[in-house]
Amino acid sequence: MTSRIALLLVASVFLTGQQPVRPQSAGGNGFDLVDKTGNIRKPADVRDLYQLLGTYTVELIPKGEEMHVTYASPGAAQYFRKNGKFADGTVLVKEVFATDHGPMTTGDAHWASDTKVWFVMIKDAKNRFPNNPLWGDGWGWALFKADAPDKQVATDYKKDCLSCHIPAQSNDWIYVQGYPVLKSK
Amino acid sequence: MTSRIALLLVASVFLTGQQPVRPQSAGGNGFDLVDKTGNIRKPADVRDLYQLLGTYTVELIPKGEEMHVTYASPGAAQYFRKNGKFADGTVLVKEVFATDHGPMTTGDAHWASDTKVWFVMIKDAKNRFPNNPLWGDGWGWALFKADAPDKQVATDYKKDCLSCHIPAQSNDWIYVQGYPVLKSK
Repeated sequence: MTSRIALLLVASVFLTGQQPVRPQSAGGNGFDLVDKTGNIRKPADVRDLYQLLGTYTVELIPKGEEMHVTYASPGAAQYFRKNGKFADGTVLVKEVFATDHGPMTTGDAHWASDTKVWFVMIKDAKNRFPNNPLWGDGWGWALFKADAPDKQVATDYKKDCLSCHIPAQSNDWIYVQGYPVLKSK
Repeated sequence: MTSRIALLLVASVFLTGQQPVRPQSAGGNGFDLVDKTGNIRKPADVRDLYQLLGTYTVELIPKGEEMHVTYASPGAAQYFRKNGKFADGTVLVKEVFATDHGPMTTGDAHWASDTKVWFVMIKDAKNRFPNNPLWGDGWGWALFKADAPDKQVATDYKKDCLSCHIPAQSNDWIYVQGYPVLKSK
């Protein structure tokens, strides 16, 4: 049976031209990115394989601008629309960009330029790592910077991550108002 | 043989939890959306099934702001990175949103609110509809408005669409500078 499933998965890759995505009914596969002690790896090929949740532009204090683009693991939005929450194991990746801008036909346009950092969150409905300072409040939290994109550099989510999420605390710490796909496909 | 492929596609849906995507090596499937005379339908489930190319915010003249989110049919970015151009049949969808904004931890944040219109473009490398005023310059062009989202309302792409693309003429009319996934996955 296992070999038949393997054969079908290979056939799936051949026929669809894509990597197979695992069944999403049980939620995301985020714990594939987590080792036994809770260390989080950054998922690969997010721009190709994840779905967009939405984009924020932020006029930084005191100056400057960033564009924040948030992607979710495949199936995350469908699950959220049905259940009103993120599935255990859902992965969210917020890629933070510097921006460029210039005059276009309808006005001054702003767009993403270089990546600055990636924030990664993995939904943890089971409080799996109560003694790991990167896990808590229902999520695993991680930070990767552009100069070393595979090195997780956060040390304590309460210091490194949570403060920026305070305005979204009532929505499980997620800025859902800017993610249209969570309301309708 | 056909029935075996059908069986494998059904198995693919079952095993992957997703609709199967057709082989991408030959390009996109955009002409599934086009009838014999060149009428263009809006693709379904874009937010769930397409991949993000990128987001622009536009400070409108004389006032106001829009957020333009552009999605591409699956496989479009991979093909572009390899070939330096969009495959025949690639579908691009630009969803234009009004925006809201409010103060967050790091500054004033802007996000997408209601959808205003969708622009749809289908790459046509073969000049299939030389007498249809919605086809030309290498693309099919279409416009759908939020108050009637399935009704195509453009009548002449040179009047309704092209003027806003003039700044991108040298890049096959596409604002590639704001689409990071076309450079790296």
